[in-house]
Amino acid sequence: MNAAAGPVEVTDRTLRDQARPVLYHYDPAFIEFFEHTSRLLQQVFQTQYDVVIMQGEAILGLEAASASLISPGDKVLNLVSGVFGKWFEDFIAKYGGDTIELAVPYNDAIDPEDVRKALQRNRDVKFLSVVHSETPSGTANPLRAIGNIAREFGVLTIVDTVSGLAGENLSPESWGLDVAVAGPQKCLGGTPGLSLMAISPAAWKAMESKPSPLRGSFLSILDWKSAWIEGHRFPYTPSVSEIYALESVLSQALEIGMERYVARHVAIARACRAGIKALGLELWAAREEIAATCCTAITMPAGLTDAQIRGRMRDVYGVMTSGGYGELAGKLFRLGHMGKAAHPTYLAAEMAILERTLADLRYPIELGAGVGAAMAALGEWSAISG
Amino acid sequence: MNAAAGPVEVTDRTLRDQARPVLYHYDPAFIEFFEHTSRLLQQVFQTQYDVVIMQGEAILGLEAASASLISPGDKVLNLVSGVFGKWFEDFIAKYGGDTIELAVPYNDAIDPEDVRKALQRNRDVKFLSVVHSETPSGTANPLRAIGNIAREFGVLTIVDTVSGLAGENLSPESWGLDVAVAGPQKCLGGTPGLSLMAISPAAWKAMESKPSPLRGSFLSILDWKSAWIEGHRFPYTPSVSEIYALESVLSQALEIGMERYVARHVAIARACRAGIKALGLELWAAREEIAATCCTAITMPAGLTDAQIRGRMRDVYGVMTSGGYGELAGKLFRLGHMGKAAHPTYLAAEMAILERTLADLRYPIELGAGVGAAMAALGEWSAISG
Amino acid sequence: MNAAAGPVEVTDRTLRDQARPVLYHYDPAFIEFFEHTSRLLQQVFQTQYDVVIMQGEAILGLEAASASLISPGDKVLNLVSGVFGKWFEDFIAKYGGDTIELAVPYNDAIDPEDVRKALQRNRDVKFLSVVHSETPSGTANPLRAIGNIAREFGVLTIVDTVSGLAGENLSPESWGLDVAVAGPQKCLGGTPGLSLMAISPAAWKAMESKPSPLRGSFLSILDWKSAWIEGHRFPYTPSVSEIYALESVLSQALEIGMERYVARHVAIARACRAGIKALGLELWAAREEIAATCCTAITMPAGLTDAQIRGRMRDVYGVMTSGGYGELAGKLFRLGHMGKAAHPTYLAAEMAILERTLADLRYPIELGAGVGAAMAALGEWSAISG
Amino acid sequence: MNAAAGPVEVTDRTLRDQARPVLYHYDPAFIEFFEHTSRLLQQVFQTQYDVVIMQGEAILGLEAASASLISPGDKVLNLVSGVFGKWFEDFIAKYGGDTIELAVPYNDAIDPEDVRKALQRNRDVKFLSVVHSETPSGTANPLRAIGNIAREFGVLTIVDTVSGLAGENLSPESWGLDVAVAGPQKCLGGTPGLSLMAISPAAWKAMESKPSPLRGSFLSILDWKSAWIEGHRFPYTPSVSEIYALESVLSQALEIGMERYVARHVAIARACRAGIKALGLELWAAREEIAATCCTAITMPAGLTDAQIRGRMRDVYGVMTSGGYGELAGKLFRLGHMGKAAHPTYLAAEMAILERTLADLRYPIELGAGVGAAMAALGEWSAISG
Repeated sequence: MNAAAGPVEVTDRTLRDQARPVLYHYDPAFIEFFEHTSRLLQQVFQTQYDVVIMQGEAILGLEAASASLISPGDKVLNLVSGVFGKWFEDFIAKYGGDTIELAVPYNDAIDPEDVRKALQRNRDVKFLSVVHSETPSGTANPLRAIGNIAREFGVLTIVDTVSGLAGENLSPESWGLDVAVAGPQKCLGGTPGLSLMAISPAAWKAMESKPSPLRGSFLSILDWKSAWIEGHRFPYTPSVSEIYALESVLSQALEIGMERYVARHVAIARACRAGIKALGLELWAAREEIAATCCTAITMPAGLTDAQIRGRMRDVYGVMTSGGYGELAGKLFRLGHMGKAAHPTYLAAEMAILERTLADLRYPIELGAGVGAAMAALGEWSAISG
Repeated sequence: MNAAAGPVEVTDRTLRDQARPVLYHYDPAFIEFFEHTSRLLQQVFQTQYDVVIMQGEAILGLEAASASLISPGDKVLNLVSGVFGKWFEDFIAKYGGDTIELAVPYNDAIDPEDVRKALQRNRDVKFLSVVHSETPSGTANPLRAIGNIAREFGVLTIVDTVSGLAGENLSPESWGLDVAVAGPQKCLGGTPGLSLMAISPAAWKAMESKPSPLRGSFLSILDWKSAWIEGHRFPYTPSVSEIYALESVLSQALEIGMERYVARHVAIARACRAGIKALGLELWAAREEIAATCCTAITMPAGLTDAQIRGRMRDVYGVMTSGGYGELAGKLFRLGHMGKAAHPTYLAAEMAILERTLADLRYPIELGAGVGAAMAALGEWSAISG
Repeated sequence: MNAAAGPVEVTDRTLRDQARPVLYHYDPAFIEFFEHTSRLLQQVFQTQYDVVIMQGEAILGLEAASASLISPGDKVLNLVSGVFGKWFEDFIAKYGGDTIELAVPYNDAIDPEDVRKALQRNRDVKFLSVVHSETPSGTANPLRAIGNIAREFGVLTIVDTVSGLAGENLSPESWGLDVAVAGPQKCLGGTPGLSLMAISPAAWKAMESKPSPLRGSFLSILDWKSAWIEGHRFPYTPSVSEIYALESVLSQALEIGMERYVARHVAIARACRAGIKALGLELWAAREEIAATCCTAITMPAGLTDAQIRGRMRDVYGVMTSGGYGELAGKLFRLGHMGKAAHPTYLAAEMAILERTLADLRYPIELGAGVGAAMAALGEWSAISG
Repeated sequence: MNAAAGPVEVTDRTLRDQARPVLYHYDPAFIEFFEHTSRLLQQVFQTQYDVVIMQGEAILGLEAASASLISPGDKVLNLVSGVFGKWFEDFIAKYGGDTIELAVPYNDAIDPEDVRKALQRNRDVKFLSVVHSETPSGTANPLRAIGNIAREFGVLTIVDTVSGLAGENLSPESWGLDVAVAGPQKCLGGTPGLSLMAISPAAWKAMESKPSPLRGSFLSILDWKSAWIEGHRFPYTPSVSEIYALESVLSQALEIGMERYVARHVAIARACRAGIKALGLELWAAREEIAATCCTAITMPAGLTDAQIRGRMRDVYGVMTSGGYGELAGKLFRLGHMGKAAHPTYLAAEMAILERTLADLRYPIELGAGVGAAMAALGEWSAISG
């Protein structure tokens, strides 16, 4: 059982759909399929903006956004509430930008008012970069407020919503998002290998009016605009099977309905936190209202190690979870609940195995307490179930 | 989540293996594959007896055994501890046998000493028929003792171990079993559509020395002997894809090892019963030592109906369980734990959803109590896990 | 490449659909799926009659028809134009019927006028049994005329259209067919393991009014009537994955449309014969108008053996074909062109490999002559293609 | 039928293997799987050099090679014998290199002696870039001779063998190849989405000793060295399912053996050319000895258009081929014969449909002539078949 923080376990339907026979990318049937998939992606992003499906894992989309937008000397306000937010500064630097950092501890979230103040102090900021859902910390930033403040200041936003899309609410147009980058392998429950992007007209304009627009590169978003959006041609061979899998997970999410799909993630994350607290464990997030829906980060229990807990959960009970990443290594571990795992059966199984593992390790918990509290906190599942 | 009493949820590997391209049945590669599968089946049956794979669900094997062995006037001691045991009398009658019934209530198991007495009283009994694992009741009969008593009396046994094979121990030679019929869709975690049979030399002899041996029929076991065993030809077209799936589940079980494979079923069934009792529910089986490993039957809680409990578990939480069958309808419901479901994660999920459902229905239980007790009763899972 | 006479190669879509997760047979979703599949089967049979899906390869359906209809002493006019027609007499005898045989050589087809004469001579005939498409001979009988003559005489027909359905035209009501038995693994391009049956009201009546109606048996068709048709329950566990595959192939055929689907088989069979003749080989069928659409039987070329031709085609070139069956062994070999193989690409590949193989064996043929003639004889494929 | 120039049709085994459940990339089982796959890739490359699997279609590997090796002002001798060779100059320019072009017409191949002369004339050349197999032209360059000349001059080579690996012979060490980039979706018969690279020690050294080594980018090869090769960690999330598919096709090729695997491509390409010539069509390649094994390019027959030929082959007969690419559009069309299509059955089918299509279009050809000539030219297939 893959209960990690992504790539996540995919549904059997996704696996079957991914196994459709590989078509030549210029087969008219594939062209049509790619277009259809793009339309579904727009619906999942709940946007009228153009969408672009770049053919590499989401880090490609993030680097592409940096490379396509940032020119040497551009000021970028980068919000840091975790490992991924911090890492983005490498891209800013690589493409010549000057980072202005607004940081909080890695168990906290950005206060929108601090964003406002930072933008007031730095009137020449051109871009704001923010991680919507900080997977390594299991926290989420208040994207809506942040995006709208950026818009007030005429600042373009670059949004890492890799593990946010379909797990948290999102609205590019009304939230002031200019380039939003998501991954299929997180809340959508798909396979890794693609960057899902929504691009505002202002972002297109910024890319095109750059001193030296980025074209003719695997990193170029404009290549996709001129080739695919304007001509239904591909800048290079797309990853056919990944597109099959993407179409499948987008369809599955839309059949459930985005509102209910997101609500499931919200409900399961809340239930998971209730279970963790009932076991006497500590949530990593400074407060519950900033906890992400993609996974729940748990402070490493005193006296236990990652290898003990996660190793035993996997080796003995077959449940794969995620550890701390980068500088968070050893400080926390994470239970994923994305895609098909955003379901009471998965949550119960994960929680029960965590309990059993802690008991095996002589950590004082009451078997069943976590599952019981989680199930109690589920809320009215019938309203959002199948 | 299919947590029913069979057909059960199959592993992704089984699904992939079943999807191997369909071969012409006389392709040498298929002949070899069928032979290989037969060898694996012998290993799973832990027998040197011939095995036969009849090409229809296990009821075919049971009817075939009756039709192939019983002649008009033959006395058959039929042991009845549940619906399936009782139904077998229809086959005895259809093929002209005279049934001597030894019955116990449907929540109980046969006492081997009663078998001895019955055989002492009825010296002309030719066959003894017995259900190893009474799926509808969630109970198991003491097959080893029964088989050995039959052997003492020179009585041939016809054994319905449809849901027993791979979940309960079994040894055709040393337990005195002559025709044992199993199904792939139960503890082996496979797909329905085949009858898996082990046939003793005495059983072959009985079939061949019958006044009118059954040949030239879909019901004929002898057809498989003369065609397949003796000539590596098929009496008719086998179900190619089902053979693929069978080979897969046999391989998976053997990779784990039959001893550990069975031990998992034993451990999960025990844990399940512990959970049920902790919730204050009543096991259907009169006593735990006769409970089957394939599924746990639970007396319908007072004031609740099958539709309420099972309907809600499925419709709201996506967990499919089984109800009471035949005359047991409404009296009990059953949690399956066979094949891939013979695992702590599945058990925790089933139990948690049962708890949540009972709570939804205002039935007084403590959320988490069942899961906690089940996990506590698991025993040393690391000894039998992957 | 499986170019045999069945089980045939199935499409990738069929394999994917067959791999849908196994459901408990009483899961409401499966009940609905089985009902849906039954409706599709009616459309493929182009009938309003009840359809029954028996859970074993088509020989089960044929034996079931005999066992369910024939009572001791019943006279059955059995038409024999090949191995399968002759074999049916074993079933007639087994269930007590008296066979009146009307036979032609195994490369010929029944003359309907001979049927009329036989019925005129035998006024007490109760059933007429006929093979629609004699797969082992690659010939077809004039079923429409035969069925209508039987109807004139008030004789019920038992029709083996195992390899006929979807490859030859068929209309139970207007052709006077009472029990028609087909297999999914032939022209429908599906997997073996099921009997597809259309049953006329008169046939139902005959089964029910038999002195001892066959019930409570794997061979009973009436069990399916009372359980499934009248109660949407199963007489025993159905082969879930086979039903998945069946639904898939029925859907695929209906999407093409039955008229075009059959026309493809007709056109490819015609083209195949043209190719064979162009190579100087001899068709087994006495005349082209009686050739079947399922496969083309070719008289074994002088001086060559089955092992040489078919062995080399398979071992060197990976093309599996079928040999002669039963008493036709060694006298002919067969190229299958059913389901996905009813396509010019498959035909070209089979024919080219046959040519190359014959040349390897120093048999005097002109490479390309067969493929060229086949392609020339294709007719207007665009009218019946995708 | 996908008979295009790639992505090609994949085997059913590849599709099943690709559908293995998605693992978390840091699951120890996946780490081991990735390592195993890397070892297989080395064997397929027949090299002891390090291999790198970059997570994007082969153009990523090509751009990465340019970005990782070329510094502003570096002189690159770029060999141009087709569209892809020419395009590479965009990458050279983008990363600051100065291109010295050695070009031949797009139906010809580079003469190694011209390479020697060019290097003699340009002693400051640092890199030589060459396309091994020019897919758009269906031609191959004499890579061995070219690589060895480059080595003589101490020039590092960047080799686009995207459609060469596994279809043409290749030996990084003895042929003087420094960075070789291949794709799984060509002769290996896999799915698109990865760059398969072999890197010589000299190439590593060049990347590391560059004024500003490329790190921290999706384009960085060094990231893979430091993360994966040195630490068994991933620079970012790999495309899990693509790795599954890659392992599968590598295994399939190695089971056949690389020598035989390549020999099949050589034999089928030769047979294809024989068929084309027999139809009176003109090969695009100036002479046969420079024809590639991946696909056969055919000069557009006078009076016919791409839409007529390829459109009809696909729309009526379901055979997808490739057209002319870039400036070759309309001038030629291509029959692919890679991976599973490198087989006589595929070739016969493609050729027969081409013939039938030309005849439909009233183009004067003799039906069967192409297939016949192709089969005649096959050579001793038994030596290289299964």
